[in-house]
Amino acid sequence: VAPTEALVRQLERIVGPGHVVTDLEVIAGYTADFTGRFRGHTAAVVRPLDAAQVAAVLSVCRAEGVALVPQGGNTGLVGGGVPLRGEVVLSLRRLDVISDVDPVGGQLTAGAGVTVGAVQRAATDIGWAYGVDLSSRDSATVGGTIATNAGGLRVLRHGDTRAQLLGVEAVLGTGEVVSHLGGLLKDNTGYHLPSLLCGSEGTLGVVTAARLRLVPPPHEPVVALVALSSVPGAVELAGSLRRELPGLEAVELFFDEGLDLVCTATGVAPPFARRHRAYLVVELSGGEPAAAALAGLLEGSGAMANSAVALDPVPAAALWRYREAHTEAINSIGPPHKMDVTLPPATLAEFVEAVPGAVTSIAPQARTWLFGHAADGNIHVNVTGVAPEDEAVDAVVLELAAAMGGSISAEHGIGTAKRRWLHLNRTPAELSTFATLKRALDPDNVLNPNVLLGG
Amino acid sequence: VAPTEALVRQLERIVGPGHVVTDLEVIAGYTADFTGRFRGHTAAVVRPLDAAQVAAVLSVCRAEGVALVPQGGNTGLVGGGVPLRGEVVLSLRRLDVISDVDPVGGQLTAGAGVTVGAVQRAATDIGWAYGVDLSSRDSATVGGTIATNAGGLRVLRHGDTRAQLLGVEAVLGTGEVVSHLGGLLKDNTGYHLPSLLCGSEGTLGVVTAARLRLVPPPHEPVVALVALSSVPGAVELAGSLRRELPGLEAVELFFDEGLDLVCTATGVAPPFARRHRAYLVVELSGGEPAAAALAGLLEGSGAMANSAVALDPVPAAALWRYREAHTEAINSIGPPHKMDVTLPPATLAEFVEAVPGAVTSIAPQARTWLFGHAADGNIHVNVTGVAPEDEAVDAVVLELAAAMGGSISAEHGIGTAKRRWLHLNRTPAELSTFATLKRALDPDNVLNPNVLLGG
Repeated sequence: VAPTEALVRQLERIVGPGHVVTDLEVIAGYTADFTGRFRGHTAAVVRPLDAAQVAAVLSVCRAEGVALVPQGGNTGLVGGGVPLRGEVVLSLRRLDVISDVDPVGGQLTAGAGVTVGAVQRAATDIGWAYGVDLSSRDSATVGGTIATNAGGLRVLRHGDTRAQLLGVEAVLGTGEVVSHLGGLLKDNTGYHLPSLLCGSEGTLGVVTAARLRLVPPPHEPVVALVALSSVPGAVELAGSLRRELPGLEAVELFFDEGLDLVCTATGVAPPFARRHRAYLVVELSGGEPAAAALAGLLEGSGAMANSAVALDPVPAAALWRYREAHTEAINSIGPPHKMDVTLPPATLAEFVEAVPGAVTSIAPQARTWLFGHAADGNIHVNVTGVAPEDEAVDAVVLELAAAMGGSISAEHGIGTAKRRWLHLNRTPAELSTFATLKRALDPDNVLNPNVLLGG
Repeated sequence: VAPTEALVRQLERIVGPGHVVTDLEVIAGYTADFTGRFRGHTAAVVRPLDAAQVAAVLSVCRAEGVALVPQGGNTGLVGGGVPLRGEVVLSLRRLDVISDVDPVGGQLTAGAGVTVGAVQRAATDIGWAYGVDLSSRDSATVGGTIATNAGGLRVLRHGDTRAQLLGVEAVLGTGEVVSHLGGLLKDNTGYHLPSLLCGSEGTLGVVTAARLRLVPPPHEPVVALVALSSVPGAVELAGSLRRELPGLEAVELFFDEGLDLVCTATGVAPPFARRHRAYLVVELSGGEPAAAALAGLLEGSGAMANSAVALDPVPAAALWRYREAHTEAINSIGPPHKMDVTLPPATLAEFVEAVPGAVTSIAPQARTWLFGHAADGNIHVNVTGVAPEDEAVDAVVLELAAAMGGSISAEHGIGTAKRRWLHLNRTPAELSTFATLKRALDPDNVLNPNVLLGG
């Protein structure tokens, strides 16, 4: 149902006339995602200032039978924050206050509209770090990263976004405003609503603030680029690094084709004279002793001869660049289909070897680029040379991942884009339980009704 | 409703005649907790073998309107696993199989009845460790520790039980059997049922198996005992250790009165010639370099002169003993009231100073013993010299903790013992949301109806 003029007036009474956006030019910034793949439309964007306003907006929309799409930085990749069916957009960006910063306990409270980058800077200012990092850090918001349970570059060491949540304030679809921002590291007093809301993609409630734990900053980081002759060898090495190195911060994986593309697109020289099949970027804390422990492991696995190790930030950044430049290098040859999957360790190498052939079997002109977070089993599959609306390659890749015991979404979520494949990962009993929870916490189906389960 | 003879016959048809226990002598082992504080009664203990049998038992009990109390190792401390109102006991101990052990990925699947100690040994056998450790390790089960979201000695480094769960198999109160044991470290495909079930104290579903992540074993552990002249000084040092030492495994706190009691009760000599107010036991991984980093921090804080540092396992165990012997030393002077609370860093020291006086103000003969997990803010308050059934001291301690922003349950849970105080930590909106979730997943209120919310 499209919002009526009368609804707009009601919303204006809640948030103020300047914060119900109906100007089509301004609205355009809220109706399409940043990649341009998902384009919707809406008659209004509502921009509340706090949880009380969110609750009032929700109450009005429930009464009028109008659906809401919560939106943060609009950096989602699965169409979960875009009004594809004319929903009212509930923009949380004005909830952008960081408060109750605790330098002894290492915690802070962030409004849903605070960017991940702002949390990181506030943490650094008091000698701590935020455990979540991702390339969209300066646009992605706390609320959006909670809704999608964002992963990123530090999951190996600090866990996903869910693991950072000491508490949330949220407006549920029932209209209840729940708040538990005391920041207790151990608190067994009932059901863990932060964990349930995290990853629920705005379908159960609107998170308006979160109490976030902070983590120790990396100490004297050591970075290594390790070249390996086989994919199974890389997977196995990632496993032993995880088991043997207590200060391990990240183990990232990429391959020969991707490295070639990065070198061509960015003009950097290849890291080694000879070409290798697989590469790991390894980062660990602990300076010289950590570097020695890493070198010992690499010697033992026969990989030391094809490794570069850096303790200095400048060469360390240069080694990271080979991995980080993948996204821009791939974008330079055309907008890719982006799939993020997780494989269990036992089938990760097999998946990597099989997926390019599976793609070209149905799209001979396509090219497949793989990179990811090796120690988590999380592989980003990018496919270029296929029309944006052609979902056949998505189907092939996701079906292959599921058939090998993997997840069709490691970190992006389901959104609207992957709903049709959710049954690949979830049994009817699980889907039925999800629907039960949805009905319980959003009985009028007003929050993101077309995301995750709806449609 | 007490089970009828006809119900017993139905249950026997599901689990076999030998596994519906009605012999009163055998039943006695299931109707009281191990401390003897909680004593119930039941006409039957059902011991299913797998999730299908659990589902069938649940179905029969729902149809007959008979409540179930799930039970693991019966080591709970809040009466959550004992049939206080004549419920049928659902013992999960026969689900004791460890399977799908993955030495590369560091994971295993454990049935609900596997003990924490057995998980630890299976992990050690393949070069990994289990992130949860607690003193009841050889009785407490995987299912029980998930139901209570058990904490213990390693939460600082590896998180609580919830953080170890890659997936669960569970029978919900709705009768749905959900299973997601693929062991993917990143998997954003819907609501996170493991996190919701973890800490729900058997009120939403019966966890029958779990896929557990394993963690790197401690490498070259360094243990230090640090004496401090003030409680605030100890809290502050715990905070800086957490921020500065990447390999930190544990920071445990105790005090002068407790140390005196430990030395008297166990016959060990005091660690230092002079008496100090507060003590920290610190453990970190990393051998000599880690010990040097720790020594640097202790020098900087002026605490090095009153510290003992051990890299060798034998003296390290002797230092740990001062902390670990608290429970037996306290038990030696009478059964204590045990309360486990968490305080925020800002009020932790104030709480420690205030609680003994608050207790003696209403029970002059009582003695208060405090120890805990300093870096988590988790303080175990033990009170001796008070009759077991006299809950006035419990009320004073829990009200004080809540008034200072703390949790009335850090890790034991609410059970039946703390229901009357749950409102101290949870708003009406939160309690109403818990009740909504309970009705959604256990619509006939058959699972632990007297625990957490019921009564």
